[in-house]
Amino acid sequence: MFNYKLLQETFSEVISNKYFEMFMMGIIVFSAMLIGIDTFNLDPVYEDIIFTLDRLITIVFVIEISIRITAYEKPWHFFKSGWNIFDFVIVTISLVPIDGNNSDVARLLRIFRVLRLITIMPELKGIINALFKSAKSIGYVLILMFIIFYIFAVSGTVFFAETKSGLWSDVGTALLTLFRVMTFEGWTEVMYETMEIHPWSWAFYLSFIFLTTFTFLNMIIGIILDTLNEEHKKENQEAENEEKQLLRDLIEQNRQLNEKIDKLEHTIAKHHKI
Amino acid sequence: MFNYKLLQETFSEVISNKYFEMFMMGIIVFSAMLIGIDTFNLDPVYEDIIFTLDRLITIVFVIEISIRITAYEKPWHFFKSGWNIFDFVIVTISLVPIDGNNSDVARLLRIFRVLRLITIMPELKGIINALFKSAKSIGYVLILMFIIFYIFAVSGTVFFAETKSGLWSDVGTALLTLFRVMTFEGWTEVMYETMEIHPWSWAFYLSFIFLTTFTFLNMIIGIILDTLNEEHKKENQEAENEEKQLLRDLIEQNRQLNEKIDKLEHTIAKHHKI
Amino acid sequence: MFNYKLLQETFSEVISNKYFEMFMMGIIVFSAMLIGIDTFNLDPVYEDIIFTLDRLITIVFVIEISIRITAYEKPWHFFKSGWNIFDFVIVTISLVPIDGNNSDVARLLRIFRVLRLITIMPELKGIINALFKSAKSIGYVLILMFIIFYIFAVSGTVFFAETKSGLWSDVGTALLTLFRVMTFEGWTEVMYETMEIHPWSWAFYLSFIFLTTFTFLNMIIGIILDTLNEEHKKENQEAENEEKQLLRDLIEQNRQLNEKIDKLEHTIAKHHKI
Amino acid sequence: MFNYKLLQETFSEVISNKYFEMFMMGIIVFSAMLIGIDTFNLDPVYEDIIFTLDRLITIVFVIEISIRITAYEKPWHFFKSGWNIFDFVIVTISLVPIDGNNSDVARLLRIFRVLRLITIMPELKGIINALFKSAKSIGYVLILMFIIFYIFAVSGTVFFAETKSGLWSDVGTALLTLFRVMTFEGWTEVMYETMEIHPWSWAFYLSFIFLTTFTFLNMIIGIILDTLNEEHKKENQEAENEEKQLLRDLIEQNRQLNEKIDKLEHTIAKHHKI
Repeated sequence: MFNYKLLQETFSEVISNKYFEMFMMGIIVFSAMLIGIDTFNLDPVYEDIIFTLDRLITIVFVIEISIRITAYEKPWHFFKSGWNIFDFVIVTISLVPIDGNNSDVARLLRIFRVLRLITIMPELKGIINALFKSAKSIGYVLILMFIIFYIFAVSGTVFFAETKSGLWSDVGTALLTLFRVMTFEGWTEVMYETMEIHPWSWAFYLSFIFLTTFTFLNMIIGIILDTLNEEHKKENQEAENEEKQLLRDLIEQNRQLNEKIDKLEHTIAKHHKI
Repeated sequence: MFNYKLLQETFSEVISNKYFEMFMMGIIVFSAMLIGIDTFNLDPVYEDIIFTLDRLITIVFVIEISIRITAYEKPWHFFKSGWNIFDFVIVTISLVPIDGNNSDVARLLRIFRVLRLITIMPELKGIINALFKSAKSIGYVLILMFIIFYIFAVSGTVFFAETKSGLWSDVGTALLTLFRVMTFEGWTEVMYETMEIHPWSWAFYLSFIFLTTFTFLNMIIGIILDTLNEEHKKENQEAENEEKQLLRDLIEQNRQLNEKIDKLEHTIAKHHKI
Repeated sequence: MFNYKLLQETFSEVISNKYFEMFMMGIIVFSAMLIGIDTFNLDPVYEDIIFTLDRLITIVFVIEISIRITAYEKPWHFFKSGWNIFDFVIVTISLVPIDGNNSDVARLLRIFRVLRLITIMPELKGIINALFKSAKSIGYVLILMFIIFYIFAVSGTVFFAETKSGLWSDVGTALLTLFRVMTFEGWTEVMYETMEIHPWSWAFYLSFIFLTTFTFLNMIIGIILDTLNEEHKKENQEAENEEKQLLRDLIEQNRQLNEKIDKLEHTIAKHHKI
Repeated sequence: MFNYKLLQETFSEVISNKYFEMFMMGIIVFSAMLIGIDTFNLDPVYEDIIFTLDRLITIVFVIEISIRITAYEKPWHFFKSGWNIFDFVIVTISLVPIDGNNSDVARLLRIFRVLRLITIMPELKGIINALFKSAKSIGYVLILMFIIFYIFAVSGTVFFAETKSGLWSDVGTALLTLFRVMTFEGWTEVMYETMEIHPWSWAFYLSFIFLTTFTFLNMIIGIILDTLNEEHKKENQEAENEEKQLLRDLIEQNRQLNEKIDKLEHTIAKHHKI
């Protein structure tokens, strides 16, 4: 009789095995390297080898995810974790059948397999979680930033519509041009062109740069302070709790002392009365 | 009989209604999008639609601000808040009548309506307030920065007046050139040109870059430390106050203990004397 | 009889007068503006006006410094302060007689008068002092940075001596080229040129950028942490000292309690023995 | 009889002598300057002088390291320190015999002697150690960064393979192009070229810039917070330990008080019973 329970337990042991984890990490890195090598102009011979190896790797990935699903007592519990769904989607995508003509699309579908490194390395998961945390606290600053960009972009299309370079032809292009100005990449070229029409347009760029730099700086400082305060509070609380405990012990000790003296007084009073 | 009081109370309820707020937010975003779409080259048909929609939005804005003014028991109290005046000015500006010829100016006047997002979202108001706060602490650094810029700009006009590019023709242009150098945008082109006349002019640029980068860094660090200290002090005080309270309780407890022992001694002494 | 003492006291009052200070600040700003205006191509008429005004300003500066020197009970004490010597040198320099031909040199000598703003505004003095403080803590990082630059510069002259642009002809030029690479200004042009000779030279640039960026980042972080720790320590000490005082009070209180109980025991023992 | 012990003790004193240290520092700086001067086009006469001086310096270095090895009671203990091995390798490398034809290689081998400044100046050693410490905490962020780079690089070779500039021809070139984009150096040129083929490719660059900037920022903030927390913890602990000691003293004092009262009660009870 087929023992499903035994199989599940064996699989559960396999996936928590350290060497199995390292083997899978190796496979992911090797898979990424293959896709990388494939971008060079290669001999058809090598292309064939890579194609075959890639097929094998896909099979390994399918087997691994099957083992991990089976390892759950109730297989559908596998899909309760977001990271598991993430893995499942990546493996499924790379199963899409591709004929020889569009190897580019195949490469694109399979490169995301390198993201599985994140789910395998717990340290990377930690960093991603930290990123998401700080992402929340900058959401509103990004809205403010976009408002600044939008006002300057529309103003730019009004002022500089006639420029030949077409950098201010519509609000979309203007937003891209402003992003370029914010990265300081060739921003003086953009400015020198518009200064020929509007000699005072340097004020437009300087006020934009000042506003965005200032807002950006405040965002960074905000993230630093938020994270710092949070960790600080946690840490301080631990330290203080210990001290407070010592103080409360003292107060309790004193209370007992108080009681004893009361009792002592009572004893003396009683004795002397008799 | 017309009940003004009832109207005012109804309006007061309306503006604090969550759905009304979300409706206005939607109108502001929609208005901004319309102005954005208008910057593309459109069919006259669409232009007309946008024109009509914009008219409607303007009316909505006027109605909303009227409601908000009426909602005050004494309508002129509306103008006590700086943010309210800000809203009022923005709505008033977009009422300026524009004929078909200068739709550009109209677009410019109406784009500032997007700033109303700031007054509607309290989180953005908070960020703006934080920006103003840190703006104060950098005022003097900006004065120092300008002194450095000014001295280098005037020196630049003296040393590099003969350059063909005209980047150092007068103090205004020189200031702009120095700002370009500070953003590192094509600063080597500026330097290589002047090095042909004065081979040692690299020292001019390097000392300028060092001075401004150093001052800028100190400004950032200054903002971080200022904000950090302020929050830190507040937080620390709370924690310490709690501990100090415990300590004061202890001291009071001990004082009572002291009194009791005094009383006890007195009792014993009295009894024995008798 | 001429009363020198009275004169000195009057002068001492004058220089501490708020309006006198504001007047001098105005003169400094006005002087800087004049020199700035002078860099534009002006009518000879205006040139003459500026020349005359500048003479007057120079006289005002001389009078002001004379007043400040006389205000000291012993005039030579004026030179005890570094900032005073700084002021004196700036005023003296602008006294150098210049004939009409080299107005450029005159402009250069007089532009430093704007630095007197620093000595007049105490807030700017504070910033300068803070800059000097953090300058100390970065000295060794700058030495390390220079060692990295120097090694890469000499290696660059060895590897890329044949490039046509002459960016690596000798160690001086190579240092300047590396500084350009560190500011990211056109660094890919520099790299693409050398990659034609040495296809692997991208490794040279990447390792240089990584090393310098990393060292630079650590320098900034170092400054932040140093300043933070110092302020923190000071602040913490104050808070702790208060708490420790409370604790010491408690210990002293307890010691007295102890003594009293000893005395009490002694009293009881004595009475019972009798 | 040759007294080896005496020699060793003399040498031990020599290398800890302050003037000897300053002399060696001078030799290192002088050696670096010679190599720097050698990169300029010089008269054969000067070349000869430099060559001779360099020989002498090499001899000084060999003598110095011999002294330092001999100064150890057991000479092979010298090689127990990593910094000593570092010094030994640098000196040994510069001993490689070079004939006149490849003076470039000689220059390259000897420039690393400037690194000995690090081993001589303890402050620089401290900075290097701090760098290594923070290097650990950024290792995983660099892995994450490389994953982002790799995915975008492979995607780039798929999307933009046809561009004429060849910036996206294979994954290696694409990685270099992406690094260029991250430094903002001419990134708009790269983008404008691919936008001619894929008008929506701006989204590719913007998402790349956002992801890498955001990850980079979090890395910096991470280093700041890590270092800050570590120092903070240490410092706080010291302060708290002192306070806790005071509290424990108090508790012990109270315990003794308690005992005394017990004893007192016992005394009274005994006396009254008799």
